[in-house]
Amino acid sequence: MNTEDIKGFFSSREQLDMADYLTLDYYLECVGDIETALAHFCSEQSTAQWQRIGYDEDFRPKHGAKVISLRVEGELEQLSYPVKHSESGPIHACRVTIAHPHCNFGPKLPNLLSAVCGEGAFFTPGIPVVKLLDIAFPDTYLAAFDGPKFGVEGIRDLLKAYNRPIFFGVVKPNIGLSPAEFAEIAYQSWLGGLDIAKDDEMLADVDWSTLIERSHALGDARKRAERETGEPKVYLANVTDEVDRLIEQHDIAVSNGANALLVNALPVGLSAVRMLAKHTKVPLIGHFPFIAAFSRMEKYGVHSRVMTKLQRLAGLDSIIMPGFGSRMMTPEEEVMKNVEECLKDFGHIRRSLPVPGGSDSALTLETVYRKVGSVDFGFVPGRGIFAHPMGPRAGAASIRRAWEAIEQGIPLERYAAGRPELQAMVDGAKGKK
Amino acid sequence: MNTEDIKGFFSSREQLDMADYLTLDYYLECVGDIETALAHFCSEQSTAQWQRIGYDEDFRPKHGAKVISLRVEGELEQLSYPVKHSESGPIHACRVTIAHPHCNFGPKLPNLLSAVCGEGAFFTPGIPVVKLLDIAFPDTYLAAFDGPKFGVEGIRDLLKAYNRPIFFGVVKPNIGLSPAEFAEIAYQSWLGGLDIAKDDEMLADVDWSTLIERSHALGDARKRAERETGEPKVYLANVTDEVDRLIEQHDIAVSNGANALLVNALPVGLSAVRMLAKHTKVPLIGHFPFIAAFSRMEKYGVHSRVMTKLQRLAGLDSIIMPGFGSRMMTPEEEVMKNVEECLKDFGHIRRSLPVPGGSDSALTLETVYRKVGSVDFGFVPGRGIFAHPMGPRAGAASIRRAWEAIEQGIPLERYAAGRPELQAMVDGAKGKK
Repeated sequence: MNTEDIKGFFSSREQLDMADYLTLDYYLECVGDIETALAHFCSEQSTAQWQRIGYDEDFRPKHGAKVISLRVEGELEQLSYPVKHSESGPIHACRVTIAHPHCNFGPKLPNLLSAVCGEGAFFTPGIPVVKLLDIAFPDTYLAAFDGPKFGVEGIRDLLKAYNRPIFFGVVKPNIGLSPAEFAEIAYQSWLGGLDIAKDDEMLADVDWSTLIERSHALGDARKRAERETGEPKVYLANVTDEVDRLIEQHDIAVSNGANALLVNALPVGLSAVRMLAKHTKVPLIGHFPFIAAFSRMEKYGVHSRVMTKLQRLAGLDSIIMPGFGSRMMTPEEEVMKNVEECLKDFGHIRRSLPVPGGSDSALTLETVYRKVGSVDFGFVPGRGIFAHPMGPRAGAASIRRAWEAIEQGIPLERYAAGRPELQAMVDGAKGKK
Repeated sequence: MNTEDIKGFFSSREQLDMADYLTLDYYLECVGDIETALAHFCSEQSTAQWQRIGYDEDFRPKHGAKVISLRVEGELEQLSYPVKHSESGPIHACRVTIAHPHCNFGPKLPNLLSAVCGEGAFFTPGIPVVKLLDIAFPDTYLAAFDGPKFGVEGIRDLLKAYNRPIFFGVVKPNIGLSPAEFAEIAYQSWLGGLDIAKDDEMLADVDWSTLIERSHALGDARKRAERETGEPKVYLANVTDEVDRLIEQHDIAVSNGANALLVNALPVGLSAVRMLAKHTKVPLIGHFPFIAAFSRMEKYGVHSRVMTKLQRLAGLDSIIMPGFGSRMMTPEEEVMKNVEECLKDFGHIRRSLPVPGGSDSALTLETVYRKVGSVDFGFVPGRGIFAHPMGPRAGAASIRRAWEAIEQGIPLERYAAGRPELQAMVDGAKGKK
């Protein structure tokens, strides 16, 4: 590209009608001339050849992506990760904001993904290292999406649970139990105080525990637990399956008494989540498999907050995500960004309940609550409830006791005295030390 | 886990009925005791808690993933990439083969992805750095998949093109042309000798070029080109869209005269590809957006060959992938692995036509051909045809002339004499030097 060509890919917010553009923040490592590399970056993700041969025309004003902000963070001795590439010259770390015209693809998730983290973004000459850090949408674009049908408030109304976290539990053993055995464990955990007993993200419709049988057994167990406790309960059935079976799986599970559905968002695809969200009669909750594969590197891939935002846009009422602590290998700042993406203003799109999870128990509840900074979150132990030495009912009770201690401002160890379900957890932790 | 617990996650091919298992090759960086970390790695991706409290049972023999091969490559001073984690101790680079029981999820792509590159694999205590390198399936598992309906042979029969590569071209300008303008350019390229004129992966169904109008215009142009040349031609329409519109988009495009369809596999999701492949009446061709985001790091994420294998399994008749040369930032060995994954024996699954692409032209054809080592590939220039100084007809002709030179064993520069379409490309390359 010559100097004039390059200019066509630079602009500013003031010069553009930003209602026509998505705003994309990238971290880039540019090899050689920075402006040339950035012009290619815009060209490759939009109008790669902006005129016909022999015609005096220019598609860039309407269809070109444009750099609207550039901050050079410094020169690097080498790329942060070794990547084969074709350019040579000095290497600069840059933070760049791109205005990307959404008329190039419209309000469709697969086409959006192709535009912002597709071939263009990842195969630009001179930019071997790329991380998509954030994405923002004008209200005109958001208007085409419904987002969550229930959201935080819908889940609270379903459970009549206000002013506290929502207590989930992943029934364990996660793989291997018959539907009847699985239902009995879930039943015990509801009696102990759990709001939502859930299938593991790895347990779906399999011949040794079909969704039909499991949702039937769990639907019955849920209603018994509701009668016995006088409280609404939720069975969260995992309907993750081939996309042409998702609607059918929804109908089976819901008609049998599942009153929320789990779906592994990236494995089925965000677009399939949107399809299911349009159809669903119950809250839809997403799990996070596959996201770490492209979000864990600090300077490469796609930031997990982008995926949280897109999952909310696709219509998930609640989003399970890697939580706090080094166990889940996610920096605290990143967990907080993901929690915030669920709850912050987002046009007309409802709030989604964040569920930062990973090896939780009664012993970690206060930490999670303090870090989140509000009661608007879900708490999702697995073995912390279902491997409790006194069984799943006591496991669930230990979580409720831990919340009571927090509410009353009493240290956990003190509150545990005379409360054997909690005492067992406190003693177990001491045993480990 | 204690020593006995750990043993339950180690086995050997001889001890297992491998028809019940997928075989997974991983590169792992283990912190602390290697066998403990690997037992957790198996546990987390399968039966994380393998018995109920108070029951004498063990789900590991049937449902546990198991290490069947381990090679410690050496001790590292630090992780290859900085990742927050909870364990401490020496760090070892390991190559590990895992037998993963497919009865845990069945022959379903979203559940397969959740198992092999989901939370279990990427959130194991003591294994912060993971790359899924390869996956193999027993025939019993492959039997549930149809794979490509047409494959290499079906595409050749459609085009009556044998004993040579298949010549694709990405119509450019890719974004901004009206359907009539777009059709005229494709028409010219067919007259020049192109087999398949294709939509860019970024051009789908948009208000300024709806799929209805574009497929209608291109279908007509294709038939005119077939009459004029006496040769079969293909218009490859990009139907990438929300998954609940894919079948409708297929029907629109095919009824209007598109005789092959393009889909961005990861953005719509592999499962949506499988759904479309079941329905399609024409060859289905995949493009590669998003794959680089999780495959480019040498020691982290998922190797692109896994995605090539899964795309073939899902039913793509042809797979467009990053090609040779430093322009596409992919090591040659990786490109070759991807080419091989399309063509090698894979149970009853048909061969898929590999299309290694990226900034190709008449000048790069011989290199690609020599590297692939056979005529069973697609060649896919964009600007190499459509930015040809004499126009797209000459651009397409330059590719055919280049193939004639290869067939006849004549150096390109010599064959260009008296063949102005090829001469212009040779001269252009000289001008650049």
